[in-house]
Amino acid sequence: MLCLQAVLLLVLWAVPESEGGRVLVYPVDGSHWVNMHVLVKELHARGHEVTVLRFSTSWYVKEHSPYYTSITIQQDTPQNLESQEFMAGFLRRSIEIRKKKIPLLSSLGLHLNLFHLLDKDQKAVARAAHTILEDQVLIKRLKEANFDLVLTDPVLPAGVLLAHYLQLPLVLNVRWISSGEGHFAIAPSPLSYIPQLFSHFSDKMDFLQRLQNLFYHALSLYIHQVISNPPFQAVCDRFFPEGVDTLSILLGADLWLMRVDFVFEFPRPTMPNVVYMGGFQCRPAQPLPPELEEFVQSSGEHGVVVMSLGTLLGGLQPQISEIIASAFACLPQKVVWRHLAGRPSTLGNNTLLLDWLPQNDLLGHPKTRAFFTHGGTNGLYEAIYHGVPVVGLPLILDQHDNMVRIEARQAGIVLDVTTLEVDSLTQALKDVLNEQKPYRENMRRLSRLHRDRPIEPLDNALFWLEFVMRNKGAAHLRSESYRMPWYTYHNLDVLALLLSLAAILLLLMSAICRCLFQRLCRKRKVKLQ
Amino acid sequence: MLCLQAVLLLVLWAVPESEGGRVLVYPVDGSHWVNMHVLVKELHARGHEVTVLRFSTSWYVKEHSPYYTSITIQQDTPQNLESQEFMAGFLRRSIEIRKKKIPLLSSLGLHLNLFHLLDKDQKAVARAAHTILEDQVLIKRLKEANFDLVLTDPVLPAGVLLAHYLQLPLVLNVRWISSGEGHFAIAPSPLSYIPQLFSHFSDKMDFLQRLQNLFYHALSLYIHQVISNPPFQAVCDRFFPEGVDTLSILLGADLWLMRVDFVFEFPRPTMPNVVYMGGFQCRPAQPLPPELEEFVQSSGEHGVVVMSLGTLLGGLQPQISEIIASAFACLPQKVVWRHLAGRPSTLGNNTLLLDWLPQNDLLGHPKTRAFFTHGGTNGLYEAIYHGVPVVGLPLILDQHDNMVRIEARQAGIVLDVTTLEVDSLTQALKDVLNEQKPYRENMRRLSRLHRDRPIEPLDNALFWLEFVMRNKGAAHLRSESYRMPWYTYHNLDVLALLLSLAAILLLLMSAICRCLFQRLCRKRKVKLQ
Repeated sequence: MLCLQAVLLLVLWAVPESEGGRVLVYPVDGSHWVNMHVLVKELHARGHEVTVLRFSTSWYVKEHSPYYTSITIQQDTPQNLESQEFMAGFLRRSIEIRKKKIPLLSSLGLHLNLFHLLDKDQKAVARAAHTILEDQVLIKRLKEANFDLVLTDPVLPAGVLLAHYLQLPLVLNVRWISSGEGHFAIAPSPLSYIPQLFSHFSDKMDFLQRLQNLFYHALSLYIHQVISNPPFQAVCDRFFPEGVDTLSILLGADLWLMRVDFVFEFPRPTMPNVVYMGGFQCRPAQPLPPELEEFVQSSGEHGVVVMSLGTLLGGLQPQISEIIASAFACLPQKVVWRHLAGRPSTLGNNTLLLDWLPQNDLLGHPKTRAFFTHGGTNGLYEAIYHGVPVVGLPLILDQHDNMVRIEARQAGIVLDVTTLEVDSLTQALKDVLNEQKPYRENMRRLSRLHRDRPIEPLDNALFWLEFVMRNKGAAHLRSESYRMPWYTYHNLDVLALLLSLAAILLLLMSAICRCLFQRLCRKRKVKLQ
Repeated sequence: MLCLQAVLLLVLWAVPESEGGRVLVYPVDGSHWVNMHVLVKELHARGHEVTVLRFSTSWYVKEHSPYYTSITIQQDTPQNLESQEFMAGFLRRSIEIRKKKIPLLSSLGLHLNLFHLLDKDQKAVARAAHTILEDQVLIKRLKEANFDLVLTDPVLPAGVLLAHYLQLPLVLNVRWISSGEGHFAIAPSPLSYIPQLFSHFSDKMDFLQRLQNLFYHALSLYIHQVISNPPFQAVCDRFFPEGVDTLSILLGADLWLMRVDFVFEFPRPTMPNVVYMGGFQCRPAQPLPPELEEFVQSSGEHGVVVMSLGTLLGGLQPQISEIIASAFACLPQKVVWRHLAGRPSTLGNNTLLLDWLPQNDLLGHPKTRAFFTHGGTNGLYEAIYHGVPVVGLPLILDQHDNMVRIEARQAGIVLDVTTLEVDSLTQALKDVLNEQKPYRENMRRLSRLHRDRPIEPLDNALFWLEFVMRNKGAAHLRSESYRMPWYTYHNLDVLALLLSLAAILLLLMSAICRCLFQRLCRKRKVKLQ
């Protein structure tokens, strides 16, 4: 093992050090920037020059940074994804929809709610793409900068269009879950065992679930075709030759850096130009601030529960916070709770409220026994990395789907925010904390599997980014499928021919049979006469 | 002899290696063993204990080796794949079939010829599997040896069945080309851009080629279902519970070590438990024997052409050797020719005949300018590794398909053995040697891409073999698909329901329409009367 690592290090050293490339980053704002920033920092650390395109209204993407230079595009209104108020409203609506408990209708509602969330953003981002491509001064500046590649997040595909316009190699930083990506843009993905986003299904589906999965897929295709894609297609129609569409540009990407690891994600088909980097942001725990370390140590043999519901808790009803506080008060453990709203009245002495916490360092602390989370991907990868079992209270977007994955591995328990009660929450926390139950050991096993790899995910991602810079793309890893029209891809023209031939043959045979039969009848008649 | 074995065993036991695992290797004989042996040697070098199951008639798999201990199974007749005479006959028949030049019929003939080749072997290997599973002494011995995994080649799936019987993790060493594997056992593989074995198509197919590709696929499925699989299914039926079939056992493999790299293979969908190790046998060139080095150096600025048609040349007609010798005589280069038959009368002074040559070291020699090959995979990977352009004279099996891949990259020229002439061969050699033509530069580019990787393919393969040993399998990388019946996998039950519902709806609507229409008519009639 040590020997192999040494060999690996040698191999990594032996790779000709590129003398600093130039990378143009077109991020998606909001929490997506958190992941992109990890890559930006690492690119900078390895001597590459990073330029980030940002918007004047951006909240997450700062204008000044030691890691990149920025180009700011003037924009009138901020995107919804950046607005905490909007997200709180989105959360409230999502919870109301889920309370109705009719699966198909509920999913329809969630999809439409998401559309409502993204609609304005998509139009704004498509407008921004239009502004950028029309700004000849900016385009000239970008062309003269001689970038080696464009790194972007394709959830809102403005960066994808810009890369195509600049004729630069394209690398995507992506989580494998949205509609088009999985089923068309990347690899053929049978709907019989690959659950659709928002389905809340695992990879083991019964008949009815597979039926619903098909419906969800059709729904997401419809939303993509009729609602999400048109604003970007309009940009294509304006700036590219006829026949160019966003999907074919996306499919033509050189590399997909996927924030996926199969200890977490359900295994599914993939492509040669997909590089997995799930957990790339995880790192060994650093020491805690002294006061926090003191609080954690005071937990004694019982240890600590870490709690964070992400940045959205402001939108939860206070009664839910009260339920959570009451449940915590029943535990012998100490609790560190990232809490943004007012202090719950039922808060126990064992619970410390903080408005920010060093989540990775806390999860990696030897005293930490469990993680109470909303089920965001980054938090779950950190929990897996450090082997901490989780109780999940998924709220919106992919959080429930994420928790289904943890539950399928019996590494955590999922609770329903619409039916949350003190007793059930306390029981879930106690179960996860109980060494006799499988959760803790399963999460440790996932952690061992996750860390057992020939190369660290961030190093792997950077290797392939530099590969694209060194080799001016990675076209040899891209399948022919992206050039084909959908009917050719599915061989529908060939099938149509074969079916036609079969039909003609059938008609001919039935005609011949009828003819023979009639002759036979006639002969008999003649005989009978 | 026994004493020697005992000493060998002692030596193996005496090597203290804390992490040494125990690997049971069930190889396929013939050229397949060459690749397996690379893994066996490396496993041994890393302190693992390797046991190889071999047959008493085996020619390639030796009983005694410093790298493994062997268990010999008594078998009456040697396999065809091991018999040079049989392979020569196979080659002659294949060439005769190809001379007919009717694509579909020719492919049918080639498939049937292959069936003729494999039929006896499949039955023999299935019989061997039966013998092994029935031999309770052997099975007890294998169980008590506490192997960590079974490493096997699934072309003849006896090892796959044995692994299932012993309930051991299963790792496959495989080239991704046979029928079932690509399309069902591994990843969904659209026939619109993934050419079938023996099709001689690239990944860019026109309408007619896609039609033929579908036909070839159906043919290979038929051969698999009706001819190749039944002997092994009989073993399943005898030794496993009802419902277990060879395909589901194959699909349940923990890991697929694939002798594939996408600078050579056309990109296609893959799975998370597929590890690519194409070119894993390649290594930097070692110095040549002094006389050979002297001959090579005597070529001066013109350099050397290396020529080898594998082990099968004995089966070629002498007139083909004469054509080749005449063409070589026209070149200013020196030629090193691996030649097993009699000395051609037209041989030039520039050509050295050898009955064996250090192919990898010659290809890596700075004086080497071109490689004349039958298009075997190993030789082509060596050519890619060392960046030497090729002229290919494919003879049988996958050799033509391999050369199609080289031709698609414009890194070599393919010749047809059924129409070979001195002029065309000389021209092909001169083209490939010509620096103005793209072949040399393209092959150098492939070489750069092939060598630009985060981890050496052999190290990667060994890492994952050891991963399976450490973690008792790699179930988390295996998709759910392998547990599903084919109609569930393709969602056919769901589609049947939806179609039935649509049909009922249609019938209902047409009944209602007819009813309404009849009423309307009746009313009109009443009015008219």
